Amino acid sequence: MVDLTFRNWFSAPRIYVENVRDGDAAYQISEEAILDSLSAVSSPAALTCRYSDDRDIEAFRTADVLVASRLDTALIAGEGKALKLIQCTSAGVEKYAPFSWLAESTMLTNASGVHADKVGEFGLMATLMLHERVPAIATRQRKHAWSRQLRGTAAGRRVMIYGVGALGGAIAKRLYSAGFFVIGVSRGGAPVAGVERVITPNKVHDELPNVEILILACPLTPDTQRVIGVRELSALPQGAGVLNVGRGGVIDHSALVSCLANGHLSGAILDVFDQEPLPEDSLLWDVPNLMVFPHVSADAPDGYIDRCLAILAENLERLSAGKGLRNRVDPTLGY
Amino acid sequence: MVDLTFRNWFSAPRIYVENVRDGDAAYQISEEAILDSLSAVSSPAALTCRYSDDRDIEAFRTADVLVASRLDTALIAGEGKALKLIQCTSAGVEKYAPFSWLAESTMLTNASGVHADKVGEFGLMATLMLHERVPAIATRQRKHAWSRQLRGTAAGRRVMIYGVGALGGAIAKRLYSAGFFVIGVSRGGAPVAGVERVITPNKVHDELPNVEILILACPLTPDTQRVIGVRELSALPQGAGVLNVGRGGVIDHSALVSCLANGHLSGAILDVFDQEPLPEDSLLWDVPNLMVFPHVSADAPDGYIDRCLAILAENLERLSAGKGLRNRVDPTLGY
Repeated sequence: MVDLTFRNWFSAPRIYVENVRDGDAAYQISEEAILDSLSAVSSPAALTCRYSDDRDIEAFRTADVLVASRLDTALIAGEGKALKLIQCTSAGVEKYAPFSWLAESTMLTNASGVHADKVGEFGLMATLMLHERVPAIATRQRKHAWSRQLRGTAAGRRVMIYGVGALGGAIAKRLYSAGFFVIGVSRGGAPVAGVERVITPNKVHDELPNVEILILACPLTPDTQRVIGVRELSALPQGAGVLNVGRGGVIDHSALVSCLANGHLSGAILDVFDQEPLPEDSLLWDVPNLMVFPHVSADAPDGYIDRCLAILAENLERLSAGKGLRNRVDPTLGY
Repeated sequence: MVDLTFRNWFSAPRIYVENVRDGDAAYQISEEAILDSLSAVSSPAALTCRYSDDRDIEAFRTADVLVASRLDTALIAGEGKALKLIQCTSAGVEKYAPFSWLAESTMLTNASGVHADKVGEFGLMATLMLHERVPAIATRQRKHAWSRQLRGTAAGRRVMIYGVGALGGAIAKRLYSAGFFVIGVSRGGAPVAGVERVITPNKVHDELPNVEILILACPLTPDTQRVIGVRELSALPQGAGVLNVGRGGVIDHSALVSCLANGHLSGAILDVFDQEPLPEDSLLWDVPNLMVFPHVSADAPDGYIDRCLAILAENLERLSAGKGLRNRVDPTLGY
């Protein structure tokens, strides 16, 4: 028998789930998924599962936990005062900054790390492609041009990963196993598995001349907005390649295009853009030696929501144990 | 003091090296490279290093060992009767078949295995690209078409490698490490590291329906000529991908193009062709969802000749020890 006197909200939370109608089926959160994922941890006192165009405002007002892929910040600020925890099923929450809409009593967690296996694989593939100069080979194919330029093996090639959190860290591990020499960049400079040396952003410029491939895998924050511009790209050695799997806003695209056009860079692979889908009339589609991917680097359809809900389950357990939350967003940092 | 009475030709061979003028510098064999590579094993009694357009026929006639990238089979048949060993610095020797020009007293060895690291990496990259459907993404880029089709991780995806010798075996190891489930095909069916199950060619048809990616990595022989045709490609499941790093003649290209055009295959990556360079007017350049690579999968420029000469050194040592040769070509099999 459970003594209800000592029960806290996280033992029997009132949960509100908001789905987007006509969204990708892989990201829909069902009642069954919630109950399955939390079964070992918690029995919800209430569970409401609605589309954003068909809300149950009464249930929303009294909910302890909100689970949603898109956050309606005005609604949360106005009607979500009872919320203790918001589990966003997206890893990046930069579009909700600044976080003035978030009450101090509400904890926000994201889906960082859910993408690790997929992005690790994609990052390895794309890094090998840049090393092999596949973007240039694909460009030459359009012109029926056979140009045999042999590339050695990847062993010891130097890669910089700008941002070695969940995304960049997963890529680092795969690159390390494949023999690359990885330099990481993070705000704190703490060691990361698979990364030879982690440096802070102020040291980046000194390292760029030694790096053959630059990978952008950081969140978009005021500090990382266009952090890679003409100065940084020019500091890379002749023939370097660039991969962006973080956010489009991290790189200055016109600087990238210039450095590709003048041959300073040998190729680039972009999976993220300022505007997505990339507009049909964007000039980026036709830039030689640039490959455009439709934001597929980090999302694996199978089990995505289950992995997000595993974070929620773990956090409810952590709250019971009086521990800090995994994946909590720091509103001042923005990730 | 060495007792010369018991010296055999392999202890002090007369070596003739034939280079091709204007060939790629990475494949030129210098006197220094020969002496360096063999220093631990043998001191050549004679060493002649010439271009094929400036031969020293006297030296050729008396040579024990010929080292060459291209074999002039008429010359060898006519003037190479003293040759004990021919080290070809190419892995594939199909263009010299049938081997009636080769005296029974002459052993032929190839460069199989020299490509292992490079082709292993290339094979992993290309397999991940087929899994991610990069050929289709590249084709859509030409049309400015954003189409977000999420792919799961590679773990457990089934790949068949047709030919698990030096090339295929190197790819298998990398794919195994990356989580793929690899089925191998070889004449003998002997176990291979990284391959879940090796089957013989007569069992291939039964397995094809379970395979998401088919990799061709076999030598070109009368048995493998167009061994993959419309029947085999049609047996693959809808959405499968095909990679060829072996020889162009192994696959029926018109069947491949049909299966790409009707959507049965999701993509293909070809690195080898019936005629190389692929002629500018070849239809293959413009086939949707087909990526053309200029035969770069297996050749790493750095140290290629040194690795070939290491095979020669090992074989001279094996002859001293009375062992069989590594990389000996069986004239009846053709590899």
